[in-house]
Amino acid sequence: MTKIEPRLLKGFRDYNLDEQSGRQVMFAKIQIVFEQFGFLPLSTPVLEYKEILMGKYGDDQKLIYSFQDHGGRDVALRYDLTVPLARFVAQNQGSLTFPFKRYHIAPVWRADNPQKGRLREFYQCDVDVVGTDSVLSDIEVIACAGKTLEVLGLVNYKIRISDREILKDFSPDTIRVIDKVEKIGVEAAEQEMQDRGISAAEISLAKKLISGVGVSPTPRLQKVIDGLAQYNLKGQVEFDAKIARGLDYYTGTVFETILLDKPEFGSICSGGRYDGLVDQFSNQTMPAVGSSIGIDRLYDALEEMNLLSKAKVADLLILNLDEKLQGEYIKLATSLRENNFNVELYYEAAKLDKQFKYAEKKGITWAVVMGEEEIKSGTVKLKNITTRDQVDISVKELPTKIKS
Amino acid sequence: MTKIEPRLLKGFRDYNLDEQSGRQVMFAKIQIVFEQFGFLPLSTPVLEYKEILMGKYGDDQKLIYSFQDHGGRDVALRYDLTVPLARFVAQNQGSLTFPFKRYHIAPVWRADNPQKGRLREFYQCDVDVVGTDSVLSDIEVIACAGKTLEVLGLVNYKIRISDREILKDFSPDTIRVIDKVEKIGVEAAEQEMQDRGISAAEISLAKKLISGVGVSPTPRLQKVIDGLAQYNLKGQVEFDAKIARGLDYYTGTVFETILLDKPEFGSICSGGRYDGLVDQFSNQTMPAVGSSIGIDRLYDALEEMNLLSKAKVADLLILNLDEKLQGEYIKLATSLRENNFNVELYYEAAKLDKQFKYAEKKGITWAVVMGEEEIKSGTVKLKNITTRDQVDISVKELPTKIKS
Repeated sequence: MTKIEPRLLKGFRDYNLDEQSGRQVMFAKIQIVFEQFGFLPLSTPVLEYKEILMGKYGDDQKLIYSFQDHGGRDVALRYDLTVPLARFVAQNQGSLTFPFKRYHIAPVWRADNPQKGRLREFYQCDVDVVGTDSVLSDIEVIACAGKTLEVLGLVNYKIRISDREILKDFSPDTIRVIDKVEKIGVEAAEQEMQDRGISAAEISLAKKLISGVGVSPTPRLQKVIDGLAQYNLKGQVEFDAKIARGLDYYTGTVFETILLDKPEFGSICSGGRYDGLVDQFSNQTMPAVGSSIGIDRLYDALEEMNLLSKAKVADLLILNLDEKLQGEYIKLATSLRENNFNVELYYEAAKLDKQFKYAEKKGITWAVVMGEEEIKSGTVKLKNITTRDQVDISVKELPTKIKS
Repeated sequence: MTKIEPRLLKGFRDYNLDEQSGRQVMFAKIQIVFEQFGFLPLSTPVLEYKEILMGKYGDDQKLIYSFQDHGGRDVALRYDLTVPLARFVAQNQGSLTFPFKRYHIAPVWRADNPQKGRLREFYQCDVDVVGTDSVLSDIEVIACAGKTLEVLGLVNYKIRISDREILKDFSPDTIRVIDKVEKIGVEAAEQEMQDRGISAAEISLAKKLISGVGVSPTPRLQKVIDGLAQYNLKGQVEFDAKIARGLDYYTGTVFETILLDKPEFGSICSGGRYDGLVDQFSNQTMPAVGSSIGIDRLYDALEEMNLLSKAKVADLLILNLDEKLQGEYIKLATSLRENNFNVELYYEAAKLDKQFKYAEKKGITWAVVMGEEEIKSGTVKLKNITTRDQVDISVKELPTKIKS
């Protein structure tokens, strides 16, 4: 038989047992905060009609994965969770309660150049409010993002915030360059603006804005900043006119978030107000605001900071001394599982050394030794894999002993 | 601006807030059972090299979504979670602990003809054990599937089980027809075998097997069946030689599960032993066994049976009487959220009727009315949205009152 080489696509990765356990704990914590803020989950498909996604992402539209399906339809893998939300809201307008508040934790795909903290498949954790242009909805969305970072153990971060209104006199091309000035530097930005054929007058205005001199928040943005202080986020929020966000659909408040201890990861949470997006699918005007956490980038940062949860390995391993005793092992495992313990059975009556090694490598603390003698007397030998200490205890005492 | 029609691809669906809440509760319950059996989560990408998936799925290979990516690579959306697992194990053999036990809850894609309970994008909930051919591993995988159904509230189901060994003298074509005899009936099956050019002798043998007369479990399968009885699953397990499973990679135990109250949904949980699959990517032999729950089908069945959990809507809505009081609303919301309540703020100082209507439509029970007077006296009016009853209570009493 021809062997197929087992390999991954560039920009894609597996998360092994440890890693995925840590990620699931993150997802669960994030979900709790989202629900505390009154958001509920929505799920939309991975594949959409390609035309749904087109014309929303500026220069980055070329990164969309698209193809023809079996029926000759032009389809695309979602590029973010926001455009599918806009499609959903427009499609179901009549049956939804507004303001419509939803969260969505799911992967998206971008055929970007892979680099540290940037994959082609990555998860976003989004909250959005559709159907109100109130300042308070901007505030809550950003406060919710901040609280989410805190529940993950992060305290030293900065939310940099601006208002697209400040950029209203600039061309889309200039806005895209301003958006990346932090990454590429002022000189390269100026060069790129020249290359894009932007007028000298506009370049001069852009440079003034980038310098920050004489630029101040709009009155509405000031209200957002003041509101965030009421969530005890004063120290974390900072006005920065350079924040533009690359996507075409933003219209008002825009923000990014960096970890001050790990700035090299770039923005790990960003978003803003996009009042015109739903309208592209609908005849009704539908203002909206949202926030998106890039969980893979955050995962990598938390890993470097030793802030990840460990895998929830089984509480104990029941050793397999003799296949004839299988019924007893199953009985014990079933009763412990019913008491909410995570229990592994060793599947073969292999040498005990091999079984201990298995527990050790998986990080399981306790092993239960139960032979014919123990079964007769209603006891087990409970062995601590780390210390190799062993005690005889009755089966009834087992749950209490493991818990302690 | 040209409007884009908001629409979904055929065979794809959204899950709205209620529906997705119910699904997430299902996922959480399933995850607990999987972990009780000592499985830990693994995550593999949605996209794989196409060659990884080819030659594994028999006739159904044509249902794989595949395309060329930006770099001209032939890529495919995963068709199941099993082949990516085999690829992962082969690729990481040296660093894994065997038997390798993992679960994976994630979507897969098949360009099948959509019908009731069969979508083109659907979730699978899989557990697999790789690296042992022990009977006990077959038993635990199936027992774990059974316990999962029970934790979702299902009791009236049947696990139909067989052994590919019983079919070893049949051609792959015959096996594929036997696999669907239950769906298409004996006559159509016989016709299809003739059409496929299968010999009269083999057709006669196949018909005998389908009738069940004189066919009995292999000694190994009998051990599996006996073992499942030790998990109190005796009444749920039934030998059925017609169970073949369409996929090419099965080699031993195979099983399907139907809900006796909703047989029209077909098998909602199936799997088996596939000892040769990992070998296709590796030079080492690596036996394996697994089980897969089709959660979308199960969701539809549970919905019809009224067994789904309701959405966890916010515990209360803080009404917005005056934007000037926003700071007080935020303070109250923050303190309640810190006490693990899910709290919504109404984002605009709209008419109270509109705000009550919002709470009512979302199914929120409690609304908090807090004007200047209440703030001065440290009280709130707490209104029950359903009964319209209203009480004045102190802010401090609020948590206790909502809990009760």
